[in-house]
Amino acid sequence: MKTTVKSDIEIAQKSTMKPIVEIANKVGLGEDDLELFGKYKAKISNEALVKIKTKDSGKIILVTSINPTPAGEGKSTITVGLGDAFNRIGKKVMIAMREPSLGPTMGIKGGATGGGYSQVLPMEDINLHFTGDLHAITTANNALAALLDNHIQQGNELQIDQRQIVWKRAVDLNDRVLRKVIIGLGGPLQGVPREDGFDITVASEIMAVLCLASDLKDLKLRLSRMVIAYNYKKEPVTVGDLGVEGALTLILKEAVKPNLVQTIEHTPALVHGGPFANIAHGCNSVIATLTASKLADYVITEAGFGADLGAEKFLHIKSRSAGIKPEAVVIVATIRALKMHGGVPKAELSQENIPALTLGFANLQKHIETIKSFGLPIVVAINKFITDTDQEVNTLLEWCNRENVPAVLTEVWEKGGEGGIELAEMLLKVIEEEENKFYPLYDISDSIDKKVRIIVQKVYGGKDVEFSQKAKKQLIEFEQFGWSNLAVCMAKSQYSLSDDPTKLGRPVDFTVTVREFKPSIGAGFIVALTGEVMTMPGLPKKPAALNMDVDENGNAIGLF
Amino acid sequence: MKTTVKSDIEIAQKSTMKPIVEIANKVGLGEDDLELFGKYKAKISNEALVKIKTKDSGKIILVTSINPTPAGEGKSTITVGLGDAFNRIGKKVMIAMREPSLGPTMGIKGGATGGGYSQVLPMEDINLHFTGDLHAITTANNALAALLDNHIQQGNELQIDQRQIVWKRAVDLNDRVLRKVIIGLGGPLQGVPREDGFDITVASEIMAVLCLASDLKDLKLRLSRMVIAYNYKKEPVTVGDLGVEGALTLILKEAVKPNLVQTIEHTPALVHGGPFANIAHGCNSVIATLTASKLADYVITEAGFGADLGAEKFLHIKSRSAGIKPEAVVIVATIRALKMHGGVPKAELSQENIPALTLGFANLQKHIETIKSFGLPIVVAINKFITDTDQEVNTLLEWCNRENVPAVLTEVWEKGGEGGIELAEMLLKVIEEEENKFYPLYDISDSIDKKVRIIVQKVYGGKDVEFSQKAKKQLIEFEQFGWSNLAVCMAKSQYSLSDDPTKLGRPVDFTVTVREFKPSIGAGFIVALTGEVMTMPGLPKKPAALNMDVDENGNAIGLF
Repeated sequence: MKTTVKSDIEIAQKSTMKPIVEIANKVGLGEDDLELFGKYKAKISNEALVKIKTKDSGKIILVTSINPTPAGEGKSTITVGLGDAFNRIGKKVMIAMREPSLGPTMGIKGGATGGGYSQVLPMEDINLHFTGDLHAITTANNALAALLDNHIQQGNELQIDQRQIVWKRAVDLNDRVLRKVIIGLGGPLQGVPREDGFDITVASEIMAVLCLASDLKDLKLRLSRMVIAYNYKKEPVTVGDLGVEGALTLILKEAVKPNLVQTIEHTPALVHGGPFANIAHGCNSVIATLTASKLADYVITEAGFGADLGAEKFLHIKSRSAGIKPEAVVIVATIRALKMHGGVPKAELSQENIPALTLGFANLQKHIETIKSFGLPIVVAINKFITDTDQEVNTLLEWCNRENVPAVLTEVWEKGGEGGIELAEMLLKVIEEEENKFYPLYDISDSIDKKVRIIVQKVYGGKDVEFSQKAKKQLIEFEQFGWSNLAVCMAKSQYSLSDDPTKLGRPVDFTVTVREFKPSIGAGFIVALTGEVMTMPGLPKKPAALNMDVDENGNAIGLF
Repeated sequence: MKTTVKSDIEIAQKSTMKPIVEIANKVGLGEDDLELFGKYKAKISNEALVKIKTKDSGKIILVTSINPTPAGEGKSTITVGLGDAFNRIGKKVMIAMREPSLGPTMGIKGGATGGGYSQVLPMEDINLHFTGDLHAITTANNALAALLDNHIQQGNELQIDQRQIVWKRAVDLNDRVLRKVIIGLGGPLQGVPREDGFDITVASEIMAVLCLASDLKDLKLRLSRMVIAYNYKKEPVTVGDLGVEGALTLILKEAVKPNLVQTIEHTPALVHGGPFANIAHGCNSVIATLTASKLADYVITEAGFGADLGAEKFLHIKSRSAGIKPEAVVIVATIRALKMHGGVPKAELSQENIPALTLGFANLQKHIETIKSFGLPIVVAINKFITDTDQEVNTLLEWCNRENVPAVLTEVWEKGGEGGIELAEMLLKVIEEEENKFYPLYDISDSIDKKVRIIVQKVYGGKDVEFSQKAKKQLIEFEQFGWSNLAVCMAKSQYSLSDDPTKLGRPVDFTVTVREFKPSIGAGFIVALTGEVMTMPGLPKKPAALNMDVDENGNAIGLF
């Protein structure tokens, strides 16, 4: 047992990395297949990506979770630890996960590179600029905005209605004052004044497009389809109409290549792309996941928020777009989060509370039912926290047993891959023994409102869907524009199965209201907005930035 | 003779680069001293920067020019070609130059990596994201803005007057609609509404700070000194008051390391930093120049715009800050540009015109006098264009001879280093033979208005300076804030020696009006604004972006 708990950055900085060329060798890549970023990060070259396309595909395992709570679930930590566990039991494995946004890093302590002894490295770099992917996306996003406003300023040949520009600007920061702005002030030489707003970069459609593109050619095609405004005839205006899809592709040509790094235990990991899981689909890039599946026999990947958002979108959007069939799904739960779903406030989570825990099972149960309804094998992974009592853990394990769902306690935060070996072995067993009859819950040819209804009823367990007058009107327009055959991307509170974040556990008999639709034609989905969706976070009263610094050797201080 | 003229990108893409590790070896650096970015770009590690600090310094040669005209002077081309020429005659040489901004690249055809057979490579990468330095600066600039507005939103402990915030946001793009904006709209949850604006990243004070910092520690100190606003008592509020200099340094810790690349002829070049030459000092980073001087016997470096702006600032600001004494100055001139200074419109420049050329000498003459007044040896480099006639070239050479200034025709655009050997040899001769008694034209302890007056009279050849009421009031305030002992950074039209861009040649008897001062306390200078200074360019009617694309192998198309 450890006597003192080390912070994630302490553990990360004390870990010894191997040169990334060695890590690449493990999965059959040579130095020539890499574009190095220092000694411990690399992009995989276009030539290598083409070369491996014809190889057989490995098995993909999706990690998802119950509805997140402020108690924390540790989905990224399990993803990393599970990869290390596969590595330890001698399997050729790669991890495919999202890259973090700088905004939250500067705001609230906490990263997206795992935790404890289950982290991807170099965590400092990954959490700061990494290989510049997010900067390239910000730049492409804002170059498009500048080119659009310049088009209007220079005569507006496309007859763009400046009251109906839907393309927003972006920064990869939490900056609430940029949510609603007025631009173009100062007279005729400074452009045409209009309302505008900034999203955080990960909410840009370009991030979703980059993550769903199969290659550079598909990236350009998707970029050209993005709707940026409507003209005076109320017809959509696209990037292709503006003629700048080539320039945007040029700006993104490096960002689209997946980034290779390693875990603390030297398991190879592709960390690439990170779209929001509400306004977008919340999964790392298709290119990274498919590349990992060509290079390894097992791929551990994750999807954002709980199974109602992340897994649903992975299975309906990413899987369909990329032709991926996952072999099994891990649902991560913690005793603490289940107790919150059972009604315990955060301050009291350290106390044993079997009745609340038992009440909280309902949330886990719904997600198990959902994944089963997709025809996929499941294992429940309990992410151990220090405050969990044996009785609590046993109560959960027994409940899973009664529900006939394999479940296992994992200790990857404290023990790295060793703490996930049982989980890895259980997964191998269910993949071997259980039938996988994966199918989507809706047909892509279903109408948009039918697709929304199916998700609400089958995935959320809701009774019905209400569409606002605006949403109804949009459905008619979208039909005319030929957008009905696209996937649906739900933007809903991550905290509840319903659209009301205060309804924890397993709410029933609820109706979800779709306020508005947002077409993401480049990504290939229609976003259904339920309630307010925050696409530009704010900073807290004491931002994490206040404690950040660099020591005399150039190492990060206070990053986590 | 070539029968067809190749474009810069064609020449660049057909050149074969050597691995950057080989280039580094030429100047005594090993692979461990580098942080690779692919095979052909690298940052020099902190450890290496520390290791070389005690080495002897090589000789620094500054490349500047006459006042620029739309005809083009090719200062970067001469800088690169001269480096290659030193290399060809067996000298250990490094080039130190600025890195380009993406904004102009997307706007108007033309890069900042030299031209013809005198280019730094890989030009595509350098002109796009390069090693991410500009993205880091944009991010630090905007993180500071977000932290500042968040401070106000969260109670405004520092009592910042939101009408007097001087810190602007930044994008590395030409985006005129962001010049004047209103932010924080939408109600109390979206922050405090106020006027704001965006500069292009290269105009951010952080760019100037990064370029003048001697190391990471000095970078943090300079960042902490930057004035971002005034409080209700009209006192300056700094980054240090906000307590975020550590976070900004963390964001910039990689960007501050110089970038090593190579020329077409494999001469090592450090391409690092690129501040505006009007609102800032327009030179590559001090760290890059000093690093080059430790690694090589000769350093070829340049400064932005003409000698009245770039060289004056190099000699008064950068040299003083870094303790640099240049050995000699190259003044670049072209026959075409001199004819424009002599009154010929751009459309008629291809015709021989000896009288106009002779009239245009006056501009060159003033710059020669200025550099001589700094006590520095000079060589005039004539950058040859295809349309120059022998008689024009001879007329210029004879005039220089009469003026007793060494001058030489260079053909580096067409011939690479070979076309600059005569220039290199002439430089070696003047360094050897001529006395160098370098001294600044003003004392740093002179008052700000005296410093401005000295620059206007001795460097521009003007009669006097007028200060607006606002500027006069600021001079009194700055005295109170203790800012009088800083250098002066002139923001003036680059096209004329005066503050009137239409006055070409050598205007006399003019008065320069200082409209306003802008304190750049982190950089260590007070900017004197004469006339309107554009810190956010716009895009033209047909931006270069419209012709950009990527081919099926991922190579840039239409970049230049």
